[in-house]
Amino acid sequence: MNTKPLILVTNDDGITAPGMRTLISVMNEIGEVVVVAPDGPQSGMGHAVTIDDTLYCNEIKIDDGPQREYKSSGTPADCVKLAVSEILDRRPDLCVSGINHGSNSSINVIYSGTMSAAVEAGVEGIPAIGFSLLDYSWNANFKPLKPFIKQITESVLKNGLPDGVVLNVNFPNKTKFKGIKICRQARANWVEEFDKRKNPQGRVYYWLTGKFVNKDGGEDTDEWALANNYISVVPVQFDLTAHHFIQKLNNWDL
Amino acid sequence: MNTKPLILVTNDDGITAPGMRTLISVMNEIGEVVVVAPDGPQSGMGHAVTIDDTLYCNEIKIDDGPQREYKSSGTPADCVKLAVSEILDRRPDLCVSGINHGSNSSINVIYSGTMSAAVEAGVEGIPAIGFSLLDYSWNANFKPLKPFIKQITESVLKNGLPDGVVLNVNFPNKTKFKGIKICRQARANWVEEFDKRKNPQGRVYYWLTGKFVNKDGGEDTDEWALANNYISVVPVQFDLTAHHFIQKLNNWDL
Repeated sequence: MNTKPLILVTNDDGITAPGMRTLISVMNEIGEVVVVAPDGPQSGMGHAVTIDDTLYCNEIKIDDGPQREYKSSGTPADCVKLAVSEILDRRPDLCVSGINHGSNSSINVIYSGTMSAAVEAGVEGIPAIGFSLLDYSWNANFKPLKPFIKQITESVLKNGLPDGVVLNVNFPNKTKFKGIKICRQARANWVEEFDKRKNPQGRVYYWLTGKFVNKDGGEDTDEWALANNYISVVPVQFDLTAHHFIQKLNNWDL
Repeated sequence: MNTKPLILVTNDDGITAPGMRTLISVMNEIGEVVVVAPDGPQSGMGHAVTIDDTLYCNEIKIDDGPQREYKSSGTPADCVKLAVSEILDRRPDLCVSGINHGSNSSINVIYSGTMSAAVEAGVEGIPAIGFSLLDYSWNANFKPLKPFIKQITESVLKNGLPDGVVLNVNFPNKTKFKGIKICRQARANWVEEFDKRKNPQGRVYYWLTGKFVNKDGGEDTDEWALANNYISVVPVQFDLTAHHFIQKLNNWDL
């Protein structure tokens, strides 16, 4: 009888990304690992799903680890749906997504393919965690994260998560951390600065660039924790209802 | 001096979609209208943004209305960013998105391009409303919705919305409505049923299909309202923090 937890691993940087290879190596110490991940980068995909196109999903061997792996043409949310419905022969005990190359703190959570996979698992009732490192480079140093990822993962497996909640874990770009801080999402946003150019045919096009603006100085926020060298853990929900505003809306007399 | 409110209109079904043409006609009765919308369908795009590709955005004339219109190669969220940063010469007083051909109630909000545009506007501090009709057909009957859209829009312009809140409005597929109900998002999800096929070369591929399962019988939910012929209005926030779980997480001793 297999008593090891079944762990689904995915990401949004693509199946060969070093961040995910690190995550797989940690998960292999904890459970039976199945990887279903995009065949290429899917960053900034938000919670996209593929409804107007075909989806491919094929087994692949990337390293010598014990995990089974599948690469898919779909988005991170598609990968979770495919895994649960088509690939896995039993329900996973946990879904982990990442380690993302780059931050998913604060408002980045809504643009994040990494977190969309975790949220999709949560919607399906599977405990889930997204991991991200505040370093966009392909060769980022993921090694110092490993013991913390193991600790957080084992805590989730032990304690469970309430229905409707997943975890968003971000690591500052450091080799040593002050510790782990439970946080709320900071109220921040991107101020766009489009880079306007002309193509060789003279047609105008744009590149999306921007500046991250944090208006929220709260010491209970993920931005504060990360700036002060803590690992931030934000519990994330997908009930988007602004419950605090319902009573006031009822007074509008619509 | 121009005292009319400046209204940004977008959607995820593409700039020629009848749902958006109806929305434009209502907004022309209320304010000065600028349309920045995708040049083709973007349904199921979630909160995707285009970071690894070029963006085009060109003025276009589609009908004889007084509005200015631009079509873009981007996602709905891209369209809002482009509008605010590159197209509009002043800050819009309101952003409306839709009318979507199909439901964005309950969990559909997280997959919705229509709502991602409204949320993007909200992140940028602009009051915003997403409108959707529970009819996926291109030739859906949008006419009965018009007086209600006008009423809700004028209420938002008059009362404003708190920072961090946008509205998600869904209409049942009827010609007469019992009224408007302020609701919370129902806890429901899609159960995937992938349609597995072989392409002419013998390679397996999938189509994503699914069954909507509502586990939430609450009479304060959008699903209940819509099933009972009410127009549902859910206040939606993009602070995804599960505040209720923070204290418990702190007891985990991470």
